[in-house]
Amino acid sequence: MIATQIEPMSALAQLQESKPDRVTIVLLSGDLDKAMAAFIIATGAAAMGMRVTMFFTFWGLNTIRRSGATRSAKDWLRRMFGLLNRGGADTLPLSRFHFGGLGTKMMQTVMKQNRMPGVPELMQTALELDVRFIACTTTMGLMGITKDTLIDGIDQFAGVTTYLAEAKQGSVNLFI
Amino acid sequence: MIATQIEPMSALAQLQESKPDRVTIVLLSGDLDKAMAAFIIATGAAAMGMRVTMFFTFWGLNTIRRSGATRSAKDWLRRMFGLLNRGGADTLPLSRFHFGGLGTKMMQTVMKQNRMPGVPELMQTALELDVRFIACTTTMGLMGITKDTLIDGIDQFAGVTTYLAEAKQGSVNLFI
Amino acid sequence: MIATQIEPMSALAQLQESKPDRVTIVLLSGDLDKAMAAFIIATGAAAMGMRVTMFFTFWGLNTIRRSGATRSAKDWLRRMFGLLNRGGADTLPLSRFHFGGLGTKMMQTVMKQNRMPGVPELMQTALELDVRFIACTTTMGLMGITKDTLIDGIDQFAGVTTYLAEAKQGSVNLFI
Repeated sequence: MIATQIEPMSALAQLQESKPDRVTIVLLSGDLDKAMAAFIIATGAAAMGMRVTMFFTFWGLNTIRRSGATRSAKDWLRRMFGLLNRGGADTLPLSRFHFGGLGTKMMQTVMKQNRMPGVPELMQTALELDVRFIACTTTMGLMGITKDTLIDGIDQFAGVTTYLAEAKQGSVNLFI
Repeated sequence: MIATQIEPMSALAQLQESKPDRVTIVLLSGDLDKAMAAFIIATGAAAMGMRVTMFFTFWGLNTIRRSGATRSAKDWLRRMFGLLNRGGADTLPLSRFHFGGLGTKMMQTVMKQNRMPGVPELMQTALELDVRFIACTTTMGLMGITKDTLIDGIDQFAGVTTYLAEAKQGSVNLFI
Repeated sequence: MIATQIEPMSALAQLQESKPDRVTIVLLSGDLDKAMAAFIIATGAAAMGMRVTMFFTFWGLNTIRRSGATRSAKDWLRRMFGLLNRGGADTLPLSRFHFGGLGTKMMQTVMKQNRMPGVPELMQTALELDVRFIACTTTMGLMGITKDTLIDGIDQFAGVTTYLAEAKQGSVNLFI
């Protein structure tokens, strides 16, 4: 009888082990506040021992673009889009009160005064904590963003199937 | 003893079967990029055999409005709101760089050049893959949108309870 | 043999009990429509007997600020940010068609005509249904928002770890 009582528990343990705490974050937004929220959750979860995957798509790709990287899209339309849509984790605007850069600068100043890490620092921490970075190939093409203009440390260049395979095992799946 | 080892597994299998991989997406946004992301995830998940439910609310209702449908809201306030808030999957603006239509046109051109499906095509695929479309009745009333101005293929007109009943069984629940 | 068949089921029941239906909502947005969606889901889930936790961060903190509360941030930068960023559940703008307040007013009028509850009423219902309110301490500091300017009924002032501990047990985790 003891065995029968132990068996189901170990089977349950197996089930729980097969579904460890995973976090996936789709970052579509290129706003400073939303990118901060995404990286604060990602680094927090990784520090708590959770397996974290971030999937960068559309404007979210801006956060993982190297600052000042030259645009190398082949056709002029995408090159133009790339010019309008500046990248780099340190140039993200606020979703509100950007005010041509003033509001964003203001918040960055407050962050520095309070020694709060910005997006570049949070991103570095995320990479050190083994948060997996996936760049969405579908939207990279769409936005004229090429691999060589992205930061080092991208784990995978992939599409929606890769994201879903991870997300369906995730306990926390956010779209930001 | 063999039986006792088998039993818990089959019970676990039952549990897992009772919680198949379900995806729910609340689409509140009426932005082209966010609608694209929503439909790419929905069609991707449906193609992988997952059960997908999309819940259209607020501006997200615009994606399932028939283009050029006449407004039939009864009071002038809602009719006015309906006029301002144009619908149709082919008229959604970008969340960034809309530029009075120029940026949005530009991205649509890039999509066509690369033979990428737009929102109307992705929506059609979603319907063919049996993605369930639910239109939020609460916000339809609020925004002066009537049933006769929506596309065919809406599975249900319902509220938050219907959404939550599905979402609580979902493994991937996104709010876009 | 009967016992061995019952054991796994009760173990499963335990597992299911240890993971009751929990809903967590991160509200980063300060838009009227998104706040409404968040509170409609929160109150709906609470009414269905689910355990609901709302985590207010960045502009989402505006929904739980008392209207007309004086700003008491210590440094002028944050005080200035607090002035620009007005709070109070009754002053949230629409994410679209705000039109300097006209579109927002219009929707609020339609809501009143149809006896639909607004954000202040939904928030009151949420509190009565024991929805837990957590204010994000990290972003409160960032935005010059102090405890004394928030409404009564906040359950906890906490950070990302508290959110994740709840979310990883949640069946529905939304980021709005």
